[in-house]
Amino acid sequence: MADQALHSILEQMTLDEKIAQFMQLATPFFEGAEEEGEITGPMAEMGITEEIVRNSGSVLGASGAKEVRNIQEAHLRNNRLGIPLLIMADIVHGFKTIFPVPLAIGCSWDMELAEKSSEIAAREASISGVHVTFAPMVDLVRDPRWGRVMESTGEDPFLNSEFARAFVKGFQGKNLAEDTDRVAACVKHFAAYGAAEGGRDYNTVDMSERQLREMYLPAYKAALDEGCEMVMTAFNTVDGIPASGNKKLVRDLLRDEWGFDGILISDWGAVKELIPHGVADGEKEAAEKAMKAGVDIEMMTTCYVQHLKELVEGGSVSEELIDEAVLRILTLKKKLGLFEHPHRGADEKREQEVIMSEEHRDAARELAVKSCVLLKNDKVLPLQAGKKIALIGPFAQNGDILGPWAWKGSREKAVQLYEGIAKRAGLESLSSAKGCDVAGGTEEELKEALALAEEAEVVILALGESSEMSGEAGSRSDIRLPEVQRELLAAISKLGKPTVVVLFNGRPLDLTEVSHRADAVLEAWFPGTEGGHAIADLLYGFENPSGRLTMSFPHNVGQVPVYYNCFNTGRPQGAPDAQERYVSQYLDIPNEALYPFGYGLSYSSFTYEEPVLSNKTLKAGETIDVTVRITNTSEREGEETVQLYVRDLSGEVVRPLKELKDFVKLTFKPGETKEVNFTLREEQLRYHHSDLQFASDPGEFIVFVGPNSAEVKEQSFTLVK
Amino acid sequence: MADQALHSILEQMTLDEKIAQFMQLATPFFEGAEEEGEITGPMAEMGITEEIVRNSGSVLGASGAKEVRNIQEAHLRNNRLGIPLLIMADIVHGFKTIFPVPLAIGCSWDMELAEKSSEIAAREASISGVHVTFAPMVDLVRDPRWGRVMESTGEDPFLNSEFARAFVKGFQGKNLAEDTDRVAACVKHFAAYGAAEGGRDYNTVDMSERQLREMYLPAYKAALDEGCEMVMTAFNTVDGIPASGNKKLVRDLLRDEWGFDGILISDWGAVKELIPHGVADGEKEAAEKAMKAGVDIEMMTTCYVQHLKELVEGGSVSEELIDEAVLRILTLKKKLGLFEHPHRGADEKREQEVIMSEEHRDAARELAVKSCVLLKNDKVLPLQAGKKIALIGPFAQNGDILGPWAWKGSREKAVQLYEGIAKRAGLESLSSAKGCDVAGGTEEELKEALALAEEAEVVILALGESSEMSGEAGSRSDIRLPEVQRELLAAISKLGKPTVVVLFNGRPLDLTEVSHRADAVLEAWFPGTEGGHAIADLLYGFENPSGRLTMSFPHNVGQVPVYYNCFNTGRPQGAPDAQERYVSQYLDIPNEALYPFGYGLSYSSFTYEEPVLSNKTLKAGETIDVTVRITNTSEREGEETVQLYVRDLSGEVVRPLKELKDFVKLTFKPGETKEVNFTLREEQLRYHHSDLQFASDPGEFIVFVGPNSAEVKEQSFTLVK
Repeated sequence: MADQALHSILEQMTLDEKIAQFMQLATPFFEGAEEEGEITGPMAEMGITEEIVRNSGSVLGASGAKEVRNIQEAHLRNNRLGIPLLIMADIVHGFKTIFPVPLAIGCSWDMELAEKSSEIAAREASISGVHVTFAPMVDLVRDPRWGRVMESTGEDPFLNSEFARAFVKGFQGKNLAEDTDRVAACVKHFAAYGAAEGGRDYNTVDMSERQLREMYLPAYKAALDEGCEMVMTAFNTVDGIPASGNKKLVRDLLRDEWGFDGILISDWGAVKELIPHGVADGEKEAAEKAMKAGVDIEMMTTCYVQHLKELVEGGSVSEELIDEAVLRILTLKKKLGLFEHPHRGADEKREQEVIMSEEHRDAARELAVKSCVLLKNDKVLPLQAGKKIALIGPFAQNGDILGPWAWKGSREKAVQLYEGIAKRAGLESLSSAKGCDVAGGTEEELKEALALAEEAEVVILALGESSEMSGEAGSRSDIRLPEVQRELLAAISKLGKPTVVVLFNGRPLDLTEVSHRADAVLEAWFPGTEGGHAIADLLYGFENPSGRLTMSFPHNVGQVPVYYNCFNTGRPQGAPDAQERYVSQYLDIPNEALYPFGYGLSYSSFTYEEPVLSNKTLKAGETIDVTVRITNTSEREGEETVQLYVRDLSGEVVRPLKELKDFVKLTFKPGETKEVNFTLREEQLRYHHSDLQFASDPGEFIVFVGPNSAEVKEQSFTLVK
Repeated sequence: MADQALHSILEQMTLDEKIAQFMQLATPFFEGAEEEGEITGPMAEMGITEEIVRNSGSVLGASGAKEVRNIQEAHLRNNRLGIPLLIMADIVHGFKTIFPVPLAIGCSWDMELAEKSSEIAAREASISGVHVTFAPMVDLVRDPRWGRVMESTGEDPFLNSEFARAFVKGFQGKNLAEDTDRVAACVKHFAAYGAAEGGRDYNTVDMSERQLREMYLPAYKAALDEGCEMVMTAFNTVDGIPASGNKKLVRDLLRDEWGFDGILISDWGAVKELIPHGVADGEKEAAEKAMKAGVDIEMMTTCYVQHLKELVEGGSVSEELIDEAVLRILTLKKKLGLFEHPHRGADEKREQEVIMSEEHRDAARELAVKSCVLLKNDKVLPLQAGKKIALIGPFAQNGDILGPWAWKGSREKAVQLYEGIAKRAGLESLSSAKGCDVAGGTEEELKEALALAEEAEVVILALGESSEMSGEAGSRSDIRLPEVQRELLAAISKLGKPTVVVLFNGRPLDLTEVSHRADAVLEAWFPGTEGGHAIADLLYGFENPSGRLTMSFPHNVGQVPVYYNCFNTGRPQGAPDAQERYVSQYLDIPNEALYPFGYGLSYSSFTYEEPVLSNKTLKAGETIDVTVRITNTSEREGEETVQLYVRDLSGEVVRPLKELKDFVKLTFKPGETKEVNFTLREEQLRYHHSDLQFASDPGEFIVFVGPNSAEVKEQSFTLVK
């Protein structure tokens, strides 16, 4: 189909038809939907007419080849110009085969597996009729109180950008029209949603534009550089104006400066939310501000369909603006091949064959293995086969291990920890009790658990948060394990048995108490469909832990925000001339994270030699090679994530203590030594100056190499101009 | 002395002499100092020569008429041009007569008493030889983890501005040359030091310029509008650049935009701290950046005296810049009358008569009474005379009630709580035990306390933080009472006796547990020299509590920051159409503060009728009268702080839920009704738009009247243009 055809469709559209393309409604509004008919009330309330539904451009949350086919068929029957619907849905970490939550995927530091996870998610979703996913979410996160940290890959702009690219590649592939096993991606939430004040979801965001550009924007940009078709606005304000009505952020920066010409969609209800935010005194003003800012599709509220026509006719909004937005929507439909193949990949037969296939489950299992982070291991792990195990805790036999945003995932089909361990340990040496619920329990449950533990040689405690305790609107002011679980741990640990804690959760927790009481701690996050298998493989040494944290774990909630790429301040702790009291510190805890960015243990052990630089000076256009020899000093094959950080000692503005610039994952045989090479270029040393110029400055730099952000060996070099 | 004379002195000065005026050293460096001679080592280390000391412009921390006189005399003997020294010191909440800490003074909402406190502090300090105080500190504060919140008056820009003016008036009076019982004030810390990330002192500050101007800058500006002679830079960065080297903040905004032509002094060591901050690669660059930014006096580091000459001679810094700075220093010396009266108010005889006089102590007592905030009172207070009292806790008999920044205050001369209660209750009905220390204790201490409590009719528990737990570098990640004190409270409360908790502390604490266990809670802060008297007067009903919080108390540290003038967000809790889960909230605590801004109980009770507006529309140049009838419905005379808030329902940027615009303190006889009148003007509705324009917008506003920020009655009006 030629571009001209789109223009010809546009020319035939009435203003009403154009505006209806901007309306995104949920599935039940549509003829052909399985739950159709329940929405007469809501339709009336929202002022939605059948004509609007007939002409609307996209659907939210539809899936299932049959249902989607029915909806699309009915739509094409009713739509005057035969413009197909876009089917959009939240496919975040898997469709039915659920992968670990994105924060866990982040801990894999594995771009290939990340890409594969979104490729598989895209395949299952496409077969089920979905065209667009509202993913990846690439918000930089520093506050574990915020429930949506589970949806991000962490606190580092470089690593988040790498993951953003990997996810977009996996979702979209190379040609959306030809490869109908892919879906269009929609990067979100533009912008800086992760900086919600107090970690309270939807709360105010305020920061300097310099910090916004330096830390928060790169991952969105990386997704767009990778060709991401869509962008979703954030719920929050950016410098006082909600993203969905923020012309400076959207029109000036995203569209004009970055040249983004794809569809911009509001988050659920976010256009109308300009009213409670207090920047629009009604739906009409909300519609005008959002359209002028550059929002094309309004999700689930009706400011556009109710008011845009009046705004155009009154001259406040130009029809040119409307046409541009319509054309963006038509263009994506064309890119997806929907005009020729309105049902695209939807295929009831393949739904049976491909979704939750062994191949997909194997990939989920592999990624779950790579996502778990071993935080502590006092010579307990790996477990020896045959040891008598008591598996205790609310997550011992619990399918709530998929995490938030797994709406199509089945808890029933998830491999629980008990099942995984039973396969590795054998049922004869395994006993299990709940001990307590996630957030409550009885004396009897506790007693039963203690009795089992008494009989066992090793206790595995499966603790954590239910999936409702994180995710959207899942903010917590207390980020410890729920009290009842801490009491269970305290009671178990008094028995003196070797105790392994396996954690299921969607955020960095305050693990100060857990780390004192347990002999080993494995952070399993929400590991997805194959969780139980993956964890058992790790506990029993069939796999070797290799995950590394991408978000710092605080000593307690009062340390938040704690992140590795922070600044030195004028009075750093531990400086040679530092006074005892008058330094930047808390009186009651260290400045450093309990578990820092990049941290994670292995059953292998590695030693790093001093890094060697090929040159002590760097010029634009030239490079420095950083070489380091690393040896696996253990008798176990293992994977090491070698991390390269840089510090700019003096800038025009303050510069972070460390910034991740590169990393490599390598497998080492027992005793093996490898030489790792990194290449540094001047481009990697650029940053946003106070005038927002992105450039490097000549001067001294330190380069660090190590297994995490805290344990490093360093060399210095000079950037010359 | 004419201005010309200053120019003539300037003309005679060598470049070295000029630069030495910028050097501020501590007392021991000076001939005539009592601890003189101990600093040979430091002098050598710092590269300070005798010539530099001889020519230096000011002294830090000297006091005592005799010592100061000796230092000034020696200085004038040695200084070629006879330029007197400026004697500066931290006189924050009293000199020897210690008033409550500023956060407590804030809770008085009493500008006259605040002014009087700084007038008395100035008088005592002047008589003791001091010329300049490093006060008021007017940093807006929202994070109780930060130890220096005790030094601020709270979270509201309007109230902080009022206090800033009151303190400056009290310190400076009307004519510094004639009124030698006054000192020059130095407002600090410019700018936004109160926003240190994570509440960790000296930490990074990052915010939008719009928020900086709207919330953080007004109080500094108010101090300058009141004629404050000096400004001190903050330790922190502002948009990536430490304040002491931040040309945009200091030269462009403070000097050029605001027209401030007084002395700008760095905080202790802050010029050299540009190096660890990472914006200067050595002392020379630090000196250049600070001088170009506009810092005149360098406190306690020697970048200026070591490098400015070279910078001038090399052409990097113009001598004109140097001359301007010198002239500012000479001008203040002239304003203070030092050229004619180099010893100014220093008077050994008056030191004996005036300092800690009955008048001064009475004022301290009055302000302590007005500063205490009654947070809870379950029919326990006021105490009846004759009741058997057990006074228990680490602050029962403890002179550590002056708080931080009371270096000249005497803990021995402070009235402890025991002493105050003994006077009111009589020794026969009073027993006392420590129970525990502030942060530790023994079983025996606990047992003794419980035994006393068993015998008593009422238990008064005096709990809190030592003064070292707040103040500069006193950041805490855990803002509950120390564990041992919570255990003491738990044990006491189990006895079932009426229990009154009196709190001594420098920050809003997490009082969730305290408020559950105690029948009454009186927040006494660090009440100063007369603390014990003031608290006993309140407990026994000789005075009626009237203090109102000026900083919100959180439910727990995980709720930080919580402040009343926050934004609605797009998904406010409690909105009519709000969903159950998907609103901006924490899963585990409310959004509101435990004790909100403006809150405080009284032994009286007041009812508010509906406010009445004189007009439903407001135009620029006109006013609206807001009238409300308030009745004291109790049988006790009492003081009520009537508060007026406004909300702008729709702005160009998001607007706070409430903003304090006015208040009045009134005394009501039992049963008395008064009509309170406020006048609203368009000027009060202006705010900073996204382009930083300060203006109002036509539209709907709500006006609220009430006893605190949470309990209000409202009316609406329309601003028309």
